[in-house]
Amino acid sequence: MEQITLTLDAAYDLAFGVLRRNGFSEAHAAAVARNTVNGERDGCASHGLYRIPGCVRTLRAGKVSPDALPTVQDTAPALVKADAAGAFSLLAWEKALPLLAAKTRQCGIAALAINRCVHFSALWADIEPLTEQGLVALACTPSHAWVAPAGGATPLFGTNPLAFGWPRAGKAPFIFDMATSAAARGEIELRRRAGKPAPPGWGLDSEGRETTDPAQILAGAMLPFGGHKGSALAAMVELIAGPLIGDMTSQESLDFDAGAGGLPYGGELIIAMDPRRFLGDDADVHLARGEAMFSAMAAQGARIPGERRHRARARSEAEGVTIPSALYQEMTALG
Amino acid sequence: MEQITLTLDAAYDLAFGVLRRNGFSEAHAAAVARNTVNGERDGCASHGLYRIPGCVRTLRAGKVSPDALPTVQDTAPALVKADAAGAFSLLAWEKALPLLAAKTRQCGIAALAINRCVHFSALWADIEPLTEQGLVALACTPSHAWVAPAGGATPLFGTNPLAFGWPRAGKAPFIFDMATSAAARGEIELRRRAGKPAPPGWGLDSEGRETTDPAQILAGAMLPFGGHKGSALAAMVELIAGPLIGDMTSQESLDFDAGAGGLPYGGELIIAMDPRRFLGDDADVHLARGEAMFSAMAAQGARIPGERRHRARARSEAEGVTIPSALYQEMTALG
Repeated sequence: MEQITLTLDAAYDLAFGVLRRNGFSEAHAAAVARNTVNGERDGCASHGLYRIPGCVRTLRAGKVSPDALPTVQDTAPALVKADAAGAFSLLAWEKALPLLAAKTRQCGIAALAINRCVHFSALWADIEPLTEQGLVALACTPSHAWVAPAGGATPLFGTNPLAFGWPRAGKAPFIFDMATSAAARGEIELRRRAGKPAPPGWGLDSEGRETTDPAQILAGAMLPFGGHKGSALAAMVELIAGPLIGDMTSQESLDFDAGAGGLPYGGELIIAMDPRRFLGDDADVHLARGEAMFSAMAAQGARIPGERRHRARARSEAEGVTIPSALYQEMTALG
Repeated sequence: MEQITLTLDAAYDLAFGVLRRNGFSEAHAAAVARNTVNGERDGCASHGLYRIPGCVRTLRAGKVSPDALPTVQDTAPALVKADAAGAFSLLAWEKALPLLAAKTRQCGIAALAINRCVHFSALWADIEPLTEQGLVALACTPSHAWVAPAGGATPLFGTNPLAFGWPRAGKAPFIFDMATSAAARGEIELRRRAGKPAPPGWGLDSEGRETTDPAQILAGAMLPFGGHKGSALAAMVELIAGPLIGDMTSQESLDFDAGAGGLPYGGELIIAMDPRRFLGDDADVHLARGEAMFSAMAAQGARIPGERRHRARARSEAEGVTIPSALYQEMTALG
C-alpha cells in the first residue's frame, strides 16, 4: 500500500482546508482538524484523518450543522449542560470544560451533559483535558443501533464506548477508551474490504446465527464484548448518556439518520472527580497507592492503558504521521 | 443433597442469633442478618446465608469489629464520607444514605466513600435503596488480590464488582452487579469441591499457564472477564474505590489480611445521580425512552438485569427459602 508522510502541521492544514472548503465554519473546522490530527498522531488511525471524509459526507447529507455555536448552561451545583445545536461535539466540549472543572473542584464530583451533538471523535481525547488538570474522569456516548443485547439477535445498542482517565503526576495519564461491542464497526468493515473473516464472537447474521463473515455481521448484528457483562455495560451507556441527559438512544439515533449513512447524533455524558477534594491534605499519600498498582502491572508485563498512545505521540511529533496515499487523495478530491 | 426450607422470618432469626451469640452488636447482627436473608430471598445464594460462617470466621480472626459505630462526614457539596471503623460496611451505608440522597437531589450528582469497612455483601443491595428513591446509582469495591491483569499472570486486582441501577416507575429497577473477573471466586471453589473443571478463560496456574483445574486457579491467578477490557475496568475499580477515596487496593487488603483468610477490608464508592435534576420538567418524557429500550430488549428475549432477582423475591416471600441442611447445621454449630 502506498503511503505518504506528513508533518503534524501539514496534516492539520490538509484537514482544516478540506473542512473549510466544504463549508464548515473556521471554529468547527479547526476543532475537527485538531481532533483528527491528534488521533493520527497518537497511533489511533480509526479516529484519525480517516474520519474527515465521513465528516464531509455527514455535512453533505444535511446531518450536521457546519457552524452552529454551542451554548453552556449551569443547571445545578454539580451539573453543566452544553447544547451543541446539531454540530459536532468538540466545540461544545471545549466551551463547557472550564465550568465542569470548576464545579468538580468545588463539589468534589460533577457531570457534563453534551446534547444534540454529532459524534465521531474518540472519547480519550475528551478525558485528557481533565486528567491534565489533575481530575479523574469518565465519559460515554451511545452511537447507532448496531449491537444486539446478550440473549438477543437484533441490533439495539450502539458500540457505546466508555472511557476512563486517572491523572499521574509527571507521567502519561492512565486512560482507557473501549467500545462495549466485541469490536469496533470499523474493524469489521476493514476485514470485509480485506476479504478476511472476523474472529468468532464478533457478530451474528441477519437470521441471528453466529458468523465470521464480516459482510453478514454488518448486515446482521454486532455482539457486545464479554457476553452478558459487556451487554449490561452497553445498556448502562444507553441509559446514562441517553435518557438521563435528555438525549437519544442508539436506536433513536439510527432512526433519525433514516438511512443517510451519517454519524451518530445524540448526547455524551462526562463525569469528573477531584482527588484533592476527596482526599484533602492526604492526597499525595493515597495517589502513591495508585502508582504502586501501576508499578505492579508493569512489573508483570501488563499494558497500562494510554502508554502506547503517548509513545506514538512522541514518535509522531518527531517524525510526522504516515497515512495511505488513497486517503490523502480521497481528502484532496473532496475539495 | 438434603435441604431445609425456612420462612424469611425464621431465616432472619437463625442468622441474627448466630451473629449475636458470636459477639456482634445488635445493630451489626441485624444489618448482616437482613442483608444475607435478602440475598437468599432474591435467589442469590452466593450472598445469602452461606456468608454467615465467613462473617463469624472473620470476627474470630480479629479482622472485623463486632460493634464499632460508623461516623458520617459532610466533606464537600457533593461528597459524603462514612467511616465504618473496621466493622462491616452495612451500617455505615445505612447511616450515610440520607445525606447522599439529599446531596444528589441538591447537586444533581454526588458520591459517597465508605472507608475502613470489611466487605462481604452484594452491591445490588446497596444500589436498591437509591433506585427506590428514583435515583440512578453506580457502586464498586476492590476485594483481595486474586485476579491477574490482562497480559500478566500474577494476582493483583480483586474480583472488583461494579453495580449499576436505574429506577423504573412501577417496575423492578434495572440493576446489574458483576464481578470484573471472569467468574466469582466462590464459583471456582464450588467447582473444586464438586470435582468439576472450570471453563477455559477463568484462570491460570501458578506458572502462568492457562488451566481448567479449579484448585490450580485458586493457587494461581483468576482472569478478568472480556480480556483487556475487563482488566481495564478492574483497574478502574481499584483506583476509584481505593486511592481516590483514601483506602486500600486489593493487594493492600490481602497484605492486611496476612493469611488469616478474612474478608476483604477497604472502601466502597457509590455515585448517585438524580434524573429529575438532570431533566427538570421533561423527566417523564425522557425516562420513557429508557422504557422503550427495555421493551425492545424484552421483545427479542434478552434478559433485563434485576428481573430474575425480583421473581425469586416474590417466590421466597410466599414459600420461604431453601438452603442445604449442611449449611443449617454449620450455622447452628457456630453457637
